[in-house]
Amino acid sequence: MPTIDLNCDMGESYGAWTMGQDAQVLAHVSSANVACGFHAGDPDTMRRTVRLARDRGVAIGAHPSLPDLAGFGRREMAIAPNEAYALVVYQTGALQAFATAERTRVAHVKPHGALYNMAARDAALADAIAQAVRDVDANLFLVGLADSELTRAGERMGLAVLHEAFCDRAYEADGTLSPRREPGAVIGDPALAVAQAVALATSGDIAARDGSALHIAANTLCVHGDKPNAAEFAQRLRAALVAAGIVVAAPHREIYR
Amino acid sequence: MPTIDLNCDMGESYGAWTMGQDAQVLAHVSSANVACGFHAGDPDTMRRTVRLARDRGVAIGAHPSLPDLAGFGRREMAIAPNEAYALVVYQTGALQAFATAERTRVAHVKPHGALYNMAARDAALADAIAQAVRDVDANLFLVGLADSELTRAGERMGLAVLHEAFCDRAYEADGTLSPRREPGAVIGDPALAVAQAVALATSGDIAARDGSALHIAANTLCVHGDKPNAAEFAQRLRAALVAAGIVVAAPHREIYR
Amino acid sequence: MPTIDLNCDMGESYGAWTMGQDAQVLAHVSSANVACGFHAGDPDTMRRTVRLARDRGVAIGAHPSLPDLAGFGRREMAIAPNEAYALVVYQTGALQAFATAERTRVAHVKPHGALYNMAARDAALADAIAQAVRDVDANLFLVGLADSELTRAGERMGLAVLHEAFCDRAYEADGTLSPRREPGAVIGDPALAVAQAVALATSGDIAARDGSALHIAANTLCVHGDKPNAAEFAQRLRAALVAAGIVVAAPHREIYR
Amino acid sequence: MPTIDLNCDMGESYGAWTMGQDAQVLAHVSSANVACGFHAGDPDTMRRTVRLARDRGVAIGAHPSLPDLAGFGRREMAIAPNEAYALVVYQTGALQAFATAERTRVAHVKPHGALYNMAARDAALADAIAQAVRDVDANLFLVGLADSELTRAGERMGLAVLHEAFCDRAYEADGTLSPRREPGAVIGDPALAVAQAVALATSGDIAARDGSALHIAANTLCVHGDKPNAAEFAQRLRAALVAAGIVVAAPHREIYR
Repeated sequence: MPTIDLNCDMGESYGAWTMGQDAQVLAHVSSANVACGFHAGDPDTMRRTVRLARDRGVAIGAHPSLPDLAGFGRREMAIAPNEAYALVVYQTGALQAFATAERTRVAHVKPHGALYNMAARDAALADAIAQAVRDVDANLFLVGLADSELTRAGERMGLAVLHEAFCDRAYEADGTLSPRREPGAVIGDPALAVAQAVALATSGDIAARDGSALHIAANTLCVHGDKPNAAEFAQRLRAALVAAGIVVAAPHREIYR
Repeated sequence: MPTIDLNCDMGESYGAWTMGQDAQVLAHVSSANVACGFHAGDPDTMRRTVRLARDRGVAIGAHPSLPDLAGFGRREMAIAPNEAYALVVYQTGALQAFATAERTRVAHVKPHGALYNMAARDAALADAIAQAVRDVDANLFLVGLADSELTRAGERMGLAVLHEAFCDRAYEADGTLSPRREPGAVIGDPALAVAQAVALATSGDIAARDGSALHIAANTLCVHGDKPNAAEFAQRLRAALVAAGIVVAAPHREIYR
Repeated sequence: MPTIDLNCDMGESYGAWTMGQDAQVLAHVSSANVACGFHAGDPDTMRRTVRLARDRGVAIGAHPSLPDLAGFGRREMAIAPNEAYALVVYQTGALQAFATAERTRVAHVKPHGALYNMAARDAALADAIAQAVRDVDANLFLVGLADSELTRAGERMGLAVLHEAFCDRAYEADGTLSPRREPGAVIGDPALAVAQAVALATSGDIAARDGSALHIAANTLCVHGDKPNAAEFAQRLRAALVAAGIVVAAPHREIYR
Repeated sequence: MPTIDLNCDMGESYGAWTMGQDAQVLAHVSSANVACGFHAGDPDTMRRTVRLARDRGVAIGAHPSLPDLAGFGRREMAIAPNEAYALVVYQTGALQAFATAERTRVAHVKPHGALYNMAARDAALADAIAQAVRDVDANLFLVGLADSELTRAGERMGLAVLHEAFCDRAYEADGTLSPRREPGAVIGDPALAVAQAVALATSGDIAARDGSALHIAANTLCVHGDKPNAAEFAQRLRAALVAAGIVVAAPHREIYR
């Protein structure tokens, strides 16, 4: 039976500011990417988010970011590979400690925002991040954009890698994500996003933005948690996947390694 | 044979700014308290400091702080126990990840600066910190001011506790540290500081600032690493301790538990 | 005719996080306390907030804070007077530049959160803050808790001082605010809060929490903007004040000096 | 008589960390670029630096940076023009307030590090920065790399612009700075750096790194203050300029406008 992981960013509140609908979204996804303090997620929020995900049986992942609270980690920064390495070790370790304290464990690492995008393109940065993940815990899954420099770096490093695809983003004919400034780059219609998700989770055959045929081999799908109706969409998405005969579940090491 | 641990704060550089004489001081101490990013110690500095301490065979400890880079963690802040808990889990976990990456481990946790002072006086804060240490790794040593709320909290929690004393600070008759504003509170003469250290490491009998007799049961002594001649003092201190027949070594769990 | 200023904290969003209902609340208040980046309010948010307040004809004030994003400036910190001085100069100057760029000016300074509370009690801190305000612009109003160390410091310094009172907080018999942990400390019923506001704006005679008679001479009332129904309450409050024959307006220098 | 401005970065300490030899360098330069808290320079350091420069009769400038303490503002960040605008307004205003408090004024704005480099190349960013400077105070000088997008933006905006050249950096044949990774990019020999400075301050005719002839029209020279012997070099540089009949002085508006 086809299986897909649904992952969503979580714990992106910070101090007095709240973001997202974590408790509701957790009912529908299989993996939570927990903010680790550099773009969002103060320490006490991390603790509460880990506890919440654990209680819902959702796999917990580190979501390390560039150090940029004011920019929510979305602004690319020219960091050196050794800096990327240290950022990922630091933030992953911080989350691991909360997981240990809550008697659970961190299952994956997915870089956040600009760090994710940079690592998808830049092999040296991708190698540094993959090395960091392996040095912290060689059993962690590394999540990256499907068929990107980051997933290739993870595979070179011998890590179990999750290839990520997006339900609500269009792709160019070459398999890269359509830049947000292009018309049609964001799939606003939930029905179309759900249809793309089902295609991604089964055949992997979707239409690129220009209509050409495209194959994307993904084993995790991203659900954007910062939209107003994120929980509702996640529920609908999961129901459609299940109705299509797809198992929604976080990966197990024995399958993906 | 009497044994004492010599601990020193380390890794307190930050980005382009440097502080301390870590490489030189490491030759003479047995435990390094590594800054974890909240008062000093960016992630790459943490990595290098862990590596340096490991290479010198010096025990590595987390040195978690209040979030206060501009104040170097020296300004007391009215944090709630749950905030203290989360700060300690977060920072300790971050350091553990660097230790794991360098194939070594974190041996102890010593709160930094204002957090240390607050935890010495405030039982609720001390309990939260001790709980954090136990939840992250019940085998960690907790370092606190000798016979303080923090050491008592650690003992209540079943942790192995290290009682810290100071060579270069005077004590009041009641066993508390003399406030820095008092005359004679800081022992500037290295010979006197060394003499106090030898007394602390052997009998534990020293003179309070007012001349009265005082007994302090300590198993670790603090060497201040941010002084201009810190390495020279550490060398002299260690030599004097060894000459007095005292073993300078980080604690082993089997002894202290 | 009796006149009262209604002030409200504004611009407390930060990067991707939003807080408050600034545009709606601005329709009903006469003074806006604009966050200056240390507890909230990134630079671009400050620019937009200044523009919004200017367009609504609402007086613009600096709302300087302790450096504590994670704690929203609500955690007291043991800062020295010279640090308080520099924090207030820095944040007020930053806001003045946005005001200049938008062809308006900063009219007042009201310390935020923990800094406000500390300055109400601590004369040395209050003096440093008042000195900072005077050194930056001797024509600025200084806003502090009515009859507190901060208002006294401002008056010693020759500043025009606004004495602030609270509609939705109870007072103790000695005129201090009831601590939030006490039953009845927060006046949750809008009708009672409005009634207290009208009393404060007219006679100044209110009942303390224990029922005893209390006189508070205030010329500005605080509207809490971070409540869900802040705009609705502000509208109701203003209507009640106007109905009671009270003019709601920001102070003019010639009146208060 | 030929006149040149010597500018140097100042006030780049932060809390407990110190950097530079400000007091000594100030004896030899004519303009100080004061860090404004985003890459270095906490508020109290800003106050002391402004006072020091004012006492030495050295012109005070704002040195605004990307928000990057850990990277000392040296890492490029993909900020939008409106973010650059707000960063420059904020930091310049903060420094102006310290200048006002010390009864002096800010004379110029020179972006720091990565922001300087980005603004030299990116016209949209340069326009935003020039607009910020004009909106805060149209009488401020804008300092940028000679003949760059930033100086062009300043000129378009009607600002008085200072074209900066470097004594200790080699240039490519096209007039751009040689990247630091190239051999010979940094002129380590003080005698050669002084010779280049004298040439820049008189004819403007220097040799590019490949030996070809190059003309650079500069009216301010950068002295790097973070080198160990910065003060000694500044003294030697000024003496050589004076011996060559060049006046070392900060610009006056009437000359440069």
